[in-house]
Amino acid sequence: MANMPSTPLSNTGILAEIRCAQDYEALAPRHLAAPTYAYIAGGSDNDITVTANRVAFAELAIVPRLLRDVRAGHTRLVIQGTAIGDSFALPILLAPVAHQRLAHEKAELESARAAHATGAGIILSTLSSCTLEEVARIAGRQRWFQLYFQPQPDVTLDLVQRAHRAGYGAIVITLDASIQTPSRSAQRAGFRLPPECVAANLLGYPAAAPAELAADDSRVFQGAMKHAPTWKDLASLIEKSPLPVWVKGVMHDGDARTLKQSGVAGLVVSNHGGRSLDGAPASLSVLPAIRAAVGDDYPLLLDGGIRSGSDAFKAIALGADAVLVGRLQVYALAVAGALGVAHMLKLLREELEACMAHAGCATLTDLRHATLVKVTTGIE
Amino acid sequence: MANMPSTPLSNTGILAEIRCAQDYEALAPRHLAAPTYAYIAGGSDNDITVTANRVAFAELAIVPRLLRDVRAGHTRLVIQGTAIGDSFALPILLAPVAHQRLAHEKAELESARAAHATGAGIILSTLSSCTLEEVARIAGRQRWFQLYFQPQPDVTLDLVQRAHRAGYGAIVITLDASIQTPSRSAQRAGFRLPPECVAANLLGYPAAAPAELAADDSRVFQGAMKHAPTWKDLASLIEKSPLPVWVKGVMHDGDARTLKQSGVAGLVVSNHGGRSLDGAPASLSVLPAIRAAVGDDYPLLLDGGIRSGSDAFKAIALGADAVLVGRLQVYALAVAGALGVAHMLKLLREELEACMAHAGCATLTDLRHATLVKVTTGIE
Amino acid sequence: MANMPSTPLSNTGILAEIRCAQDYEALAPRHLAAPTYAYIAGGSDNDITVTANRVAFAELAIVPRLLRDVRAGHTRLVIQGTAIGDSFALPILLAPVAHQRLAHEKAELESARAAHATGAGIILSTLSSCTLEEVARIAGRQRWFQLYFQPQPDVTLDLVQRAHRAGYGAIVITLDASIQTPSRSAQRAGFRLPPECVAANLLGYPAAAPAELAADDSRVFQGAMKHAPTWKDLASLIEKSPLPVWVKGVMHDGDARTLKQSGVAGLVVSNHGGRSLDGAPASLSVLPAIRAAVGDDYPLLLDGGIRSGSDAFKAIALGADAVLVGRLQVYALAVAGALGVAHMLKLLREELEACMAHAGCATLTDLRHATLVKVTTGIE
Amino acid sequence: MANMPSTPLSNTGILAEIRCAQDYEALAPRHLAAPTYAYIAGGSDNDITVTANRVAFAELAIVPRLLRDVRAGHTRLVIQGTAIGDSFALPILLAPVAHQRLAHEKAELESARAAHATGAGIILSTLSSCTLEEVARIAGRQRWFQLYFQPQPDVTLDLVQRAHRAGYGAIVITLDASIQTPSRSAQRAGFRLPPECVAANLLGYPAAAPAELAADDSRVFQGAMKHAPTWKDLASLIEKSPLPVWVKGVMHDGDARTLKQSGVAGLVVSNHGGRSLDGAPASLSVLPAIRAAVGDDYPLLLDGGIRSGSDAFKAIALGADAVLVGRLQVYALAVAGALGVAHMLKLLREELEACMAHAGCATLTDLRHATLVKVTTGIE
Repeated sequence: MANMPSTPLSNTGILAEIRCAQDYEALAPRHLAAPTYAYIAGGSDNDITVTANRVAFAELAIVPRLLRDVRAGHTRLVIQGTAIGDSFALPILLAPVAHQRLAHEKAELESARAAHATGAGIILSTLSSCTLEEVARIAGRQRWFQLYFQPQPDVTLDLVQRAHRAGYGAIVITLDASIQTPSRSAQRAGFRLPPECVAANLLGYPAAAPAELAADDSRVFQGAMKHAPTWKDLASLIEKSPLPVWVKGVMHDGDARTLKQSGVAGLVVSNHGGRSLDGAPASLSVLPAIRAAVGDDYPLLLDGGIRSGSDAFKAIALGADAVLVGRLQVYALAVAGALGVAHMLKLLREELEACMAHAGCATLTDLRHATLVKVTTGIE
Repeated sequence: MANMPSTPLSNTGILAEIRCAQDYEALAPRHLAAPTYAYIAGGSDNDITVTANRVAFAELAIVPRLLRDVRAGHTRLVIQGTAIGDSFALPILLAPVAHQRLAHEKAELESARAAHATGAGIILSTLSSCTLEEVARIAGRQRWFQLYFQPQPDVTLDLVQRAHRAGYGAIVITLDASIQTPSRSAQRAGFRLPPECVAANLLGYPAAAPAELAADDSRVFQGAMKHAPTWKDLASLIEKSPLPVWVKGVMHDGDARTLKQSGVAGLVVSNHGGRSLDGAPASLSVLPAIRAAVGDDYPLLLDGGIRSGSDAFKAIALGADAVLVGRLQVYALAVAGALGVAHMLKLLREELEACMAHAGCATLTDLRHATLVKVTTGIE
Repeated sequence: MANMPSTPLSNTGILAEIRCAQDYEALAPRHLAAPTYAYIAGGSDNDITVTANRVAFAELAIVPRLLRDVRAGHTRLVIQGTAIGDSFALPILLAPVAHQRLAHEKAELESARAAHATGAGIILSTLSSCTLEEVARIAGRQRWFQLYFQPQPDVTLDLVQRAHRAGYGAIVITLDASIQTPSRSAQRAGFRLPPECVAANLLGYPAAAPAELAADDSRVFQGAMKHAPTWKDLASLIEKSPLPVWVKGVMHDGDARTLKQSGVAGLVVSNHGGRSLDGAPASLSVLPAIRAAVGDDYPLLLDGGIRSGSDAFKAIALGADAVLVGRLQVYALAVAGALGVAHMLKLLREELEACMAHAGCATLTDLRHATLVKVTTGIE
Repeated sequence: MANMPSTPLSNTGILAEIRCAQDYEALAPRHLAAPTYAYIAGGSDNDITVTANRVAFAELAIVPRLLRDVRAGHTRLVIQGTAIGDSFALPILLAPVAHQRLAHEKAELESARAAHATGAGIILSTLSSCTLEEVARIAGRQRWFQLYFQPQPDVTLDLVQRAHRAGYGAIVITLDASIQTPSRSAQRAGFRLPPECVAANLLGYPAAAPAELAADDSRVFQGAMKHAPTWKDLASLIEKSPLPVWVKGVMHDGDARTLKQSGVAGLVVSNHGGRSLDGAPASLSVLPAIRAAVGDDYPLLLDGGIRSGSDAFKAIALGADAVLVGRLQVYALAVAGALGVAHMLKLLREELEACMAHAGCATLTDLRHATLVKVTTGIE
């Protein structure tokens, strides 16, 4: 019983079954082997943090505003802290998701093409199925390279230099993934990385010697964490890197403050999509304190749980400059390759625009002042 | 194990199966095609706000009071801000629901007859199936006209003048519905507006030219929002309108304050029944702040989620002068036409009266001072 | 994996299936016709307050205390505000439940016998199946008479005088039940009061004339509430009554304060077991504020939701002197008559004693200082 | 989606089906008779406190920290308040679980062997299936003896002296279990202690005379609580005991303070795993207040609900020095004897280490300063 909008927002053309970005999630199981889907959809252990990431968005409501003129509205933004390509058509970047060959034969080449076509950014994973040089040839200027510290420091540095040569605008170091265990559902489904999923960027380097553990050594402290980066390693990398260095995985305001002081160019608040410490808080829940810690102008992105334009709206209203999209990227890639990813990004943008229009925000700067409330009755 | 009241409140006569107003909701699916029911019952997208509207009422409890004399009790009230017909027998208005031919062949003529018979108000939709002139011949004096700004300003103004000539007491501009997407369930059910559902009021006007979008234009900002009204449009309308102008759709206290200052005659707190921005807060939850913003004497109505007399009680206790009834109106209309709507209104009134009696309130003025508490144990 | 207590508390003898007082609730449906059970178990309308009454208890935890000597422990108490019989063996009274013939042929005679045998109190309903004089011959000294104001003031007064002559210690006026509607489940089950269920106490009086309603009259305000008592009626009754007058049904601290000042001898916090205003708060939730309003020494009972000794413990810790038991009384009556009710009372007492022992409370005076906490993690 | 850790933490070798400590819970029903499993898994009455213990952990999230060097990390600790063996390889002790023959023929001999092999502590129950002397021959130095006060004081003292002679390092008095009722599910399953489950430590002593109750005596106060220890009994035991005396079962900060002042060597916060007062709060929820009451350096353990290394992490972050493991111990014992228990302890330690690494804690001292947050969105 409502009036119809003069310009309906229902999408026509490709994929009539898809009416919103999150529909790619529902469709993905038809395009992925069950163990692969379980692996992608799951987080670590019992998926507690995966759930927390979603609940955090659901607990917030967006307050509509009236009568504001948004006819000049847009979603463009500039993100500081990158050597090139700081202008984005929308506040969304494709998250660094490893091994995209699991979802599509052409892997990251398709994702990169979609990002380029829509004006979104892309952060290529160290563990991509295609090399960073291959991807660079297809990607737009808004491309960054995600870096895992390697056991051998010279390999780490060589990756940085390759990214620089290939025209990536920033290095994004992932710091929250030294220890990972798959989700119980992926374990039950029997997921194993197939042989064709190799880390193309690392093929030319000698394998690192496996950690040798003494009898009383801990597989964690003296094993998995043996080559985990420390503050010293970060300082050294920042010094040597020809590219701005970002950090992905910050969840504590104290860490955020120290990272900013250490010369890091920008931060990605992230709990690795619930794939690292199961039982970590929702990344959205720690965002306001981190924004307060680094100040209004410091580049800050949010990763974890984004499934819709209203999720992006909420993250930006709580202090993020832009958001990363992980699983939705892979789902769309599996369903329809580059076309799917581009379509998904277009839907996210229109969903975000609709929220902005409802909230009377013509620009992302307006959005930063939008009002969110906890879902409640207003009586305390 | 309780004593029976001397005058039982169980309803006799028509519709023995109906024992409370909300029973019309349960009965409606038998009288409506499944896609139509899905369309009416649903909100937008995932029905998050539809659910929030209901939960907000459920989270509040009414504290009974003892021994007060309510034998002179009644539910009459005067609502300021209307040119004629400011006396209502009960604090309930039929919400402006479009396309009532979906529920009954005679559409709004039946609803208007029921409102007239019971002393409730009616707000006729711009998108009614019958013309405002037809409805005016049947309706009581408590009739207002809901207005959507039209792409052509002269059409908008002509509607206002027709409403004035037809004896409507106020114009209620809906401001929260520039963008609407149907609910997922309505989409799945395949609902489409049938050809016999035309907007009768608009038949004589030339169609507006569809918005033409440039390549980089947003379907939202440069499309759907192209003709969305702005503060300037509102000021112009208020200036030209021979009738008092109300605004429906306010959800933010700042907007409420500015609207009052702009000369708006009264406000309807509403999220369009969850049919507009999915993810907006419950309208009840923002009501207290809005009442505080506009002061005690300013006309203020509440729309969204009213299903029972106790819901109406709670809205009035939190600051509303009266409430609007949307879906319940359509359900009763589908079940039994004017008789159903009148019966539903009578049940709502008696349910409200029973709550008032329990809470020791003889009048709606008393009700405004009733005590609500959050459902809790009292230990914080 | 726990040590067995030297004196096991499992009950032997009758009713081996019953291990705790609440088990009578599970067993009752075997001993009652389905519509009767639905009527007893239900509250009014949608049972919202019935549920709230239970949840309020579940949300509280009892903090154990160590090493206190409780070997002289007991549950005896004196309740002020009664003309005779102020010593109780346990802080439990049988609530005034109407029409007990629904549950057992001998009705209140059985309940009264059980109360007498266990040292509990009994509050006989105006609407009892046996006369107050019959019950008086069997009951112990801890018997009070519950009074509904009757349409004819002389009938009301005659009931008070009969209660006085029959040796009841107090009059308990019920003030929260002028309007009652049965629960949806009782309606669906088709419950009707059978012809053998007559209000024995009222048989000798002339029937009151039914309220005559004018065309515009409200069935609530001018109908059901026509004979509802007011502050004036209460003052008059207190003046004329030879017995102390209590009030049952208070839910607001302001009412409690005024009632105390008006000369009422004691109060029962109650929402009529959820059978009156559906949507009223849990009676337990308003208890602390009411205790604070009337002071530490004023007689105050709690009715609503008591199903176990730990419920009684919590009510007393929050300020009640004793508690009333309604539905559990009827269930036990249906299952095994006087024996069942006595057994249920004994189980309640032992459950309460066990909680007291755990919490280091030898007496009910100690209990009033016990610590309850909301179920939470302790991190706010 | 994610990069693989260089040293995978998936366990190889025994029990490939077991991937985390809690998996022993899922596997246990295959290795235990149904009534026995129901008895072990259940708490008392309705398992309210059993559930509360788990929920308390689930409501907390661990905040990850970045870039800290944990390569020298370990889980070693010293626990004060024991005569010998104060060094533990991990902050975990096997809880005193009675009658372990229910789970394994060799009962506590297997548990003790597992604790010894892994460097965990063991607290042997008074009601063990093997004698304390037998267990002492197998156990490591980190062995304590759990004591129930016996009706005859000389028996109590003899047990203490035997424990001293057998080289136990401390006496742990259980004070929260004077009254216990089995869970409803264990009752329904018909669990009875089988004849081969005897309390080996008590075989040589004369049976205590059963409590004789007078007619008006309470089975609780004058029965079960007749021999319950009091502050005087505790003082006397501390005076006579050649070993440090701990207390298990404290839940109130006031009790904790008094116990410390009375000369108790250390405390175990515990609600007896939900097997004592059903409706007591989660032990985790009262831990912070108790730590605050006894000061930072006083020995304090946490018992109740530990199912994973992250649970242990949270308990330590809230103030515990170490935690006790009860049901998980029995489940692992049932599944694979000493091997199972040792494996379960190793998994718990690695899970704890992984949390520590994520939170940047190299030692348990660091852990005490880790940040926990309630699961929330950060908007209040």
